[in-house]
Amino acid sequence: MEDIRVKILERPELDNPVLIEGLPGIGLVGKLAGDHLLDELEGKKFAEIYSFYLPPQVNIQRDNTVELVNMGLYYWRSKKNDIILLLGGFQGLTPESQYRLSDKTLDIAEELGVDRIFTLGGLGTGSITRNPRVYGAATSRKLVKGLEEYGVVFRGSGAIFGASGLLLGLGMDRGMDAVCLMGETHGQIIDAKSAEAVLNVLTRILDIEVDMTKLAEKAKETEEQMARVSKMIDEQKKVMDRQFSMEQPTYIR
Amino acid sequence: MEDIRVKILERPELDNPVLIEGLPGIGLVGKLAGDHLLDELEGKKFAEIYSFYLPPQVNIQRDNTVELVNMGLYYWRSKKNDIILLLGGFQGLTPESQYRLSDKTLDIAEELGVDRIFTLGGLGTGSITRNPRVYGAATSRKLVKGLEEYGVVFRGSGAIFGASGLLLGLGMDRGMDAVCLMGETHGQIIDAKSAEAVLNVLTRILDIEVDMTKLAEKAKETEEQMARVSKMIDEQKKVMDRQFSMEQPTYIR
Amino acid sequence: MEDIRVKILERPELDNPVLIEGLPGIGLVGKLAGDHLLDELEGKKFAEIYSFYLPPQVNIQRDNTVELVNMGLYYWRSKKNDIILLLGGFQGLTPESQYRLSDKTLDIAEELGVDRIFTLGGLGTGSITRNPRVYGAATSRKLVKGLEEYGVVFRGSGAIFGASGLLLGLGMDRGMDAVCLMGETHGQIIDAKSAEAVLNVLTRILDIEVDMTKLAEKAKETEEQMARVSKMIDEQKKVMDRQFSMEQPTYIR
Amino acid sequence: MEDIRVKILERPELDNPVLIEGLPGIGLVGKLAGDHLLDELEGKKFAEIYSFYLPPQVNIQRDNTVELVNMGLYYWRSKKNDIILLLGGFQGLTPESQYRLSDKTLDIAEELGVDRIFTLGGLGTGSITRNPRVYGAATSRKLVKGLEEYGVVFRGSGAIFGASGLLLGLGMDRGMDAVCLMGETHGQIIDAKSAEAVLNVLTRILDIEVDMTKLAEKAKETEEQMARVSKMIDEQKKVMDRQFSMEQPTYIR
Repeated sequence: MEDIRVKILERPELDNPVLIEGLPGIGLVGKLAGDHLLDELEGKKFAEIYSFYLPPQVNIQRDNTVELVNMGLYYWRSKKNDIILLLGGFQGLTPESQYRLSDKTLDIAEELGVDRIFTLGGLGTGSITRNPRVYGAATSRKLVKGLEEYGVVFRGSGAIFGASGLLLGLGMDRGMDAVCLMGETHGQIIDAKSAEAVLNVLTRILDIEVDMTKLAEKAKETEEQMARVSKMIDEQKKVMDRQFSMEQPTYIR
Repeated sequence: MEDIRVKILERPELDNPVLIEGLPGIGLVGKLAGDHLLDELEGKKFAEIYSFYLPPQVNIQRDNTVELVNMGLYYWRSKKNDIILLLGGFQGLTPESQYRLSDKTLDIAEELGVDRIFTLGGLGTGSITRNPRVYGAATSRKLVKGLEEYGVVFRGSGAIFGASGLLLGLGMDRGMDAVCLMGETHGQIIDAKSAEAVLNVLTRILDIEVDMTKLAEKAKETEEQMARVSKMIDEQKKVMDRQFSMEQPTYIR
Repeated sequence: MEDIRVKILERPELDNPVLIEGLPGIGLVGKLAGDHLLDELEGKKFAEIYSFYLPPQVNIQRDNTVELVNMGLYYWRSKKNDIILLLGGFQGLTPESQYRLSDKTLDIAEELGVDRIFTLGGLGTGSITRNPRVYGAATSRKLVKGLEEYGVVFRGSGAIFGASGLLLGLGMDRGMDAVCLMGETHGQIIDAKSAEAVLNVLTRILDIEVDMTKLAEKAKETEEQMARVSKMIDEQKKVMDRQFSMEQPTYIR
Repeated sequence: MEDIRVKILERPELDNPVLIEGLPGIGLVGKLAGDHLLDELEGKKFAEIYSFYLPPQVNIQRDNTVELVNMGLYYWRSKKNDIILLLGGFQGLTPESQYRLSDKTLDIAEELGVDRIFTLGGLGTGSITRNPRVYGAATSRKLVKGLEEYGVVFRGSGAIFGASGLLLGLGMDRGMDAVCLMGETHGQIIDAKSAEAVLNVLTRILDIEVDMTKLAEKAKETEEQMARVSKMIDEQKKVMDRQFSMEQPTYIR
């Protein structure tokens, strides 16, 4: 297998497609928003990205079959734009991996005719807000101005890490327009309210409708599932640490 | 030397071979089970896998000659299936290494005509059980059903790390059937009972007989040997740490 | 994108050019000095270096557009030598990255006819000095002697880490003359005084004039900006750590 | 520059050459022994190994010129065997680097006709001994037997890390005979006595004479120099850590 393998399930002909990224990040805001979009829009998976840069792990699914860790690409036909969703449980494990995976994603996007990207994320503030604001950043002044009309707030400083940043940074070099929408969030909680705020802006921009009622529920489920996974991983980690410290001296660091 | 070097000692013609993986992992269950199989079946080594992705170390053997760290491939002719064993003292040191080593293993397996894989491991629970259960996961629903007949238990969630997971995840993409058998285990002990439970299922599936009497003894030996190695490594580590902190500033991290 | 991508904005014809490196390091002395030179000389950017070896991050600029992390190359025409400045917010993230980025920088420098390099940095002493001295090291005895005439102090031991060292070490192998100027500095503060001391030596060597009045101000600004960024990053880090520990088990280390 | 660059200073015609490795390791025993051999035998440098896998750093020499971190190869003509010495201040920074550097070293050795290797190191015991023993391991039973005649002690277990191990493990695959001599040592001190014990065995095997009087002195010097470097590095590290934590968020780990 090559380092990054794109498994094409279908080659959709898309009309004026936009790419939306919803990978895990701060407060899981982007992931929640992206996953919710997928469920509500009933997007169709057309590609899977497997990579040596993702965790070396399979996930056991409900039917007890396994799935190798991957990122999925989904599409959905809308009136204004066809929509491509990039979703997954993980980002690249190292800085270099992050670059390689984002770069590959843009190869696929370019081939499909994408010239506009929305990346979704959270902006951690350390405090809880009732009405989370949506912060933005973009690849051009024109896009910034356009976002202001949707109530997006700007700070004029800061940094965006991981895929949400790189798809902008690497995308603009390919002549793509790209925008990052960041929901204000505490950071230490999985934040459905923040995801909703982000989706409220995004759906107005794309002129689509998405029912938000199941979003809070999903966040709760995610929180519970994470807690379970987290506990399980802690167990595994503890035992593997012991095993590895027995078997694999960390004499070189 | 290339990154991964497969040294072929013999090219066996195998009949309907299955691959069994028994590398170190949780509770050393998989390794114990695999090593025991090798001893009882008197498998024959036919290949060694050397790699830059394994620890940079030689092991001193009983006769005071050294052996470069490697994974070994063994075969054994059985009535139902010929059996290939993948054994070793280590897994790949980084996530990416894990992928590369599992991928290479599958290249070899494919060449030998393997279309069925069993990976053996432990599932850490943090508590001690008298009658450890055997948990499973597989690459297809049909395989899951088949395993249920052997009393294998399923949980419908979780993740499998390292070679035990990747051989399933990467193998299914090559059209191979693959199953992971995980013995319930505390995690903090080297668990012969759990390994026995796993072997009881595996031998019934493969219709082979394996005497278990020496397994507990082997676990004890392993525990002692590990303690020795662990103590020695702690010593070495302490002194190397000092040396490295003198010689190699960790100014970049 | 290749691992390191040099985006050429302009191909200047330069006369007897020298390369000056002012990347972040101890006390930010080199960065402060380099950035100040750029502002005062009104250098013109002619190339940007993007790389998978830099942090996977975009920075949000004052106008709310983003910029992918990069190192910039600037030039300025002077009477004695044309000057090339290498500036940026980051160095390579790993030892290997450091080598690759410095090696690439030298490729560019060589193409432009550079045969003399000045790298700027700090030498941390842990104590505060009113009149920081400027320490030096060079690629030849002749250069050392030349620097002594400018009051540069030598210690006859020590090491220089990162780009400030590698541009000397890799440059001399290409037949380039190279000098490192290190301002004496506490280390725990952003040190404008030390940067001024370094610039005083450098400008005399290059026979250029640079007004220092805004340097202290810039150091103050940098300190404030760093504090802001630092606080923000701490927030982000805290939340990402939690997220990553939930999502990405560090079972392999 | 390629990842590993061998700079050839001279191509000596050597008669029946043996390779002796004396890189830093436990108690610096191997390095002390190797460096002392060089001084006493007045070996001549014929090659330098530069690599992206070594620390990104130049060392400032007594004459204030810099030297890029490298490993040196020296030769010396002896009555029984010509001798090649591999010396340096560092080993590869990662497991993979260790393999690559040892593999490259063997390429050079093979080209020069080496078919016998001695690697020198320490075996840390945590206690101080007046008369340190010399432990051994080798690539064949015949070599083990030969060493026993020189009073070398064997333990029948353990592991050898880094170049001292890999030159054996990778060398034997090229048909080279190789031996590791490990001086018994506390581990937390730079141990001239242990280095002397190792040299006593080695010189008898090679039938050469080496005056040991300056060895203790050298160990003392090394200890002092290390202390100085260590203190300096601690300073630098402290300040760079601060700088890096300001500049380079470790948000991905």
